[in-house]
Amino acid sequence: MVQTMKRPDLGAAIRASQDEHLFARYRERLDPAAAWNATLDTILSHRSVRTYLPDPVPFETVQLLVAAAQSAATSSNLQPWSVVAVEDPARKARLAALAGNQAQILQAPLFLLWIVDHHRLTQIGERVGVAAEGLHFLESFLLGAVDTALAAQNAVVALESIGLGSCYIGGIRNKPAEVAAELGLPPQTFALFGMTVGYPDAAAPASVKPRLPQQTVLFRERYGSEASVSAIAAYDGRLREFQREQSMVERDWTDQASQRVRGAASLAGRDVLRSVLHDLGFQLA
Amino acid sequence: MVQTMKRPDLGAAIRASQDEHLFARYRERLDPAAAWNATLDTILSHRSVRTYLPDPVPFETVQLLVAAAQSAATSSNLQPWSVVAVEDPARKARLAALAGNQAQILQAPLFLLWIVDHHRLTQIGERVGVAAEGLHFLESFLLGAVDTALAAQNAVVALESIGLGSCYIGGIRNKPAEVAAELGLPPQTFALFGMTVGYPDAAAPASVKPRLPQQTVLFRERYGSEASVSAIAAYDGRLREFQREQSMVERDWTDQASQRVRGAASLAGRDVLRSVLHDLGFQLA
Repeated sequence: MVQTMKRPDLGAAIRASQDEHLFARYRERLDPAAAWNATLDTILSHRSVRTYLPDPVPFETVQLLVAAAQSAATSSNLQPWSVVAVEDPARKARLAALAGNQAQILQAPLFLLWIVDHHRLTQIGERVGVAAEGLHFLESFLLGAVDTALAAQNAVVALESIGLGSCYIGGIRNKPAEVAAELGLPPQTFALFGMTVGYPDAAAPASVKPRLPQQTVLFRERYGSEASVSAIAAYDGRLREFQREQSMVERDWTDQASQRVRGAASLAGRDVLRSVLHDLGFQLA
Repeated sequence: MVQTMKRPDLGAAIRASQDEHLFARYRERLDPAAAWNATLDTILSHRSVRTYLPDPVPFETVQLLVAAAQSAATSSNLQPWSVVAVEDPARKARLAALAGNQAQILQAPLFLLWIVDHHRLTQIGERVGVAAEGLHFLESFLLGAVDTALAAQNAVVALESIGLGSCYIGGIRNKPAEVAAELGLPPQTFALFGMTVGYPDAAAPASVKPRLPQQTVLFRERYGSEASVSAIAAYDGRLREFQREQSMVERDWTDQASQRVRGAASLAGRDVLRSVLHDLGFQLA
């Protein structure tokens, strides 16, 4: 990327692989990466998979993904999350209906629900006579959400490393109370997001989506957004190029993203999340 | 793990590696993992590093980590995060003072601040004449926090795959307004967590911390916590064994975790997070 260091001594094939991965992610030629290996290859190759083969995911694979998830950092070792693995087609159908009718939830053999779990901490508090009132603050909910996300992302990298694909389903937050009822969730638990998991259908391959140029998201020492206007304009063009290749409707990121956050009506019902979380037992003080 | 599937046909060395990693993570003998590779090895080997060599992290390595971070999924491609890379010792010292005086922030050559960034989305909205009022809801803040965490965790796996170590610093949320001033953060941005990064000091090796047994966090079809009491008691014992080995004070997880969430006073000032976020431009409606 920057030119100040000697080009790393990598074989031509590895160099070609890293060049190709960085180009796919940014759609611009970058200086060579500082290092390369199979893990970086897996991470840089990420694409969301929305078309799956019917083959089930063995339960020991689910256990391996959860071992990866539990290996992520967790604040003060609180481990404030759980995961529910859903395979029953009827339950998947009901959850899909609650999450905006996404067909991939029906199609994927496995649907993981990642749960912010303050119930377990409340229970252990009761056993030792501590009221766990610190959980009633927004900070504790946020900590739970962060730790759940760190865990889930480890599972994604793990599953992609063994040839599976996945897609996060934020739509599960459209109807949190109904999802809680479907999964039998106790108070102080919340399905933060879903995740479809399965073997990607090679007949409908997913592609690496280009992201914003690094200079719009990476700053040194202090935040600075001066350089962003032209870089974002360049990104609008690169995303249109990607959309053309995918036979998608061409649309600037600028337009797409700003419409997505336009107002309450663009949040698919999630504008009431705060009061629903209250009902689920999160005070968010 | 479960006994229903044939043991995978892996070489003895690989089998020993996966057995060892799973045992370190759970402190119980588990059935063999469904698969094994270098990426799983990296993920399962995670430990938080708090003692670093002084060697700087080359900036092209930072760029590689950010490429990994940007490769994570992001809801509706909103990319609502930024990262500030701090190396200046004086700035690191000021940030350390704001984050509970953790010495590792001074010692690590690199301190990454992971920022929930709704400023960029607000700016692009202004350019196309859209008010971005959807950002004023708790849902949008939560979405930003989740996407920031997914990105950061990709960076962690990437950096560990090339021999670096890191530690998340939630303490950066102790004083969010002061951190924002130090980093020159504009309205609608928030330093969600910090991350020390550097080369681990082999003279002070970190160890893999055991986690809760899987049956306490992984459920099939519906949530169920019936099996948890005895499993958590077993975990208390395993964590004490780990603490003995590390010459740490022995303390049950049950006790440690419940004291950590006891009340406002155990949150290190973060009980006021909600009003501070308001001041930083997040309405959290």
